[in-house]
Amino acid sequence: MRYLKLTISYDGTNYNGFQRQKNAIGIQQIVEDALSELMGEDIKVVASGRTDTGVHACGQVISFETRSTVPTEHITTAIRHLLPGDIVVWKAEEVGENFNARYSAVEKTYQYRIIITDISNPFKRNYAWELKKSLDIEKMQIAANNLLGTHDFTAFCNKGSKIISPERTITVAQWQITTDKELVFTITGDGFLYRMVRNIVGALVKVGNGKITPDTFLQILLTKDRQLTGMPAPACGLYLMHVRY
Amino acid sequence: MRYLKLTISYDGTNYNGFQRQKNAIGIQQIVEDALSELMGEDIKVVASGRTDTGVHACGQVISFETRSTVPTEHITTAIRHLLPGDIVVWKAEEVGENFNARYSAVEKTYQYRIIITDISNPFKRNYAWELKKSLDIEKMQIAANNLLGTHDFTAFCNKGSKIISPERTITVAQWQITTDKELVFTITGDGFLYRMVRNIVGALVKVGNGKITPDTFLQILLTKDRQLTGMPAPACGLYLMHVRY
Repeated sequence: MRYLKLTISYDGTNYNGFQRQKNAIGIQQIVEDALSELMGEDIKVVASGRTDTGVHACGQVISFETRSTVPTEHITTAIRHLLPGDIVVWKAEEVGENFNARYSAVEKTYQYRIIITDISNPFKRNYAWELKKSLDIEKMQIAANNLLGTHDFTAFCNKGSKIISPERTITVAQWQITTDKELVFTITGDGFLYRMVRNIVGALVKVGNGKITPDTFLQILLTKDRQLTGMPAPACGLYLMHVRY
Repeated sequence: MRYLKLTISYDGTNYNGFQRQKNAIGIQQIVEDALSELMGEDIKVVASGRTDTGVHACGQVISFETRSTVPTEHITTAIRHLLPGDIVVWKAEEVGENFNARYSAVEKTYQYRIIITDISNPFKRNYAWELKKSLDIEKMQIAANNLLGTHDFTAFCNKGSKIISPERTITVAQWQITTDKELVFTITGDGFLYRMVRNIVGALVKVGNGKITPDTFLQILLTKDRQLTGMPAPACGLYLMHVRY
């Protein structure tokens, strides 16, 4: 038996999230079907985590076991013709029996992309959150600094998820402006609750457009008052960038 | 009667080109339907020119006449909810009776985008030509300089198009590398033959990867030998950027 780890990127626009499901097409199904065809046996994968409908990935990681003898170094090329163009396997590695894409993950990095524009951009509509009013990025950074360290993130967790502990440790929470004038929020942590990044970005944008102060943002975090968090930022701006093992 | 000029951008991925047709959906049909609903009467538009299936536009121009009293300054906002997200009307102007988006055009600018990458990028697959081997952009520029001026562009024109004259005047033919390391070719001329830009880019890429020399490129242009031109570059990398009147 061989144990493989694949790193994949996908445009989440046309899928109902990562997870395999009965009445809609998840990315997992497409990937498992392609791997099963390539390996000549039924393949079941474990992912580092799910992504919601419309969420993208540059560095999602999956693991699986196989009896196939397809050489590891041929996988990325061989699977290309079995996958649609919006799902790309760009790295394949052999790992030990104990590796599990979900449970071996020690850190994840997400990015969230925002564009400030009066006119909607047809090329960006599925790849960033388009907002009309400019945002005070300095205030958003002051608020975001409160995320660093270990906190109970209940305030930013959507209901309906089973949580063992709502505590997570955040090591990076950084706003940047790209050369294309996109606002990009990078957040790294040892794990994230359900919808946590999108809820954080939604609240940070409220700071950026002056609806709440950085101090109120801190109060939301500390008092765990989900009422004040507001709506999560739309899925299309979110990218799973990297999983560290 | 009022005469209107609209400037529109669109992601051409999901359409069978600009032109209205019987058995597939062209962008023209979507735009005419939206305008007809907004104006409360049947609207027929004239475009600066057609774009092929998969070709994009940042500055396509259309014109039409209407009896509607919808204020010109409200059109871009009012039509937004009548159009899908991949077609955006971003400018509306009142023009004189003699304005015709096709026949009044004096100059057009196209861009063609190329990405050099080993690994396909799921976010760029519909928006640039992905090539694996690096290209000699200096040689491509030397070859492209031969396009400047007035020439018979028969060598770069696909068959099947009705041409009154195959002569066109090119004023800009410039390769650039963006901060994202995309290779962008900008070409401006008083008009373009059918598939001319894609055929030119296809031949310039042959120069860039050493299959032909800049001098051979010039010979193709001068001898009008379409055999040597090779395949047109794929549609997804092409953008109609601007039409000057």
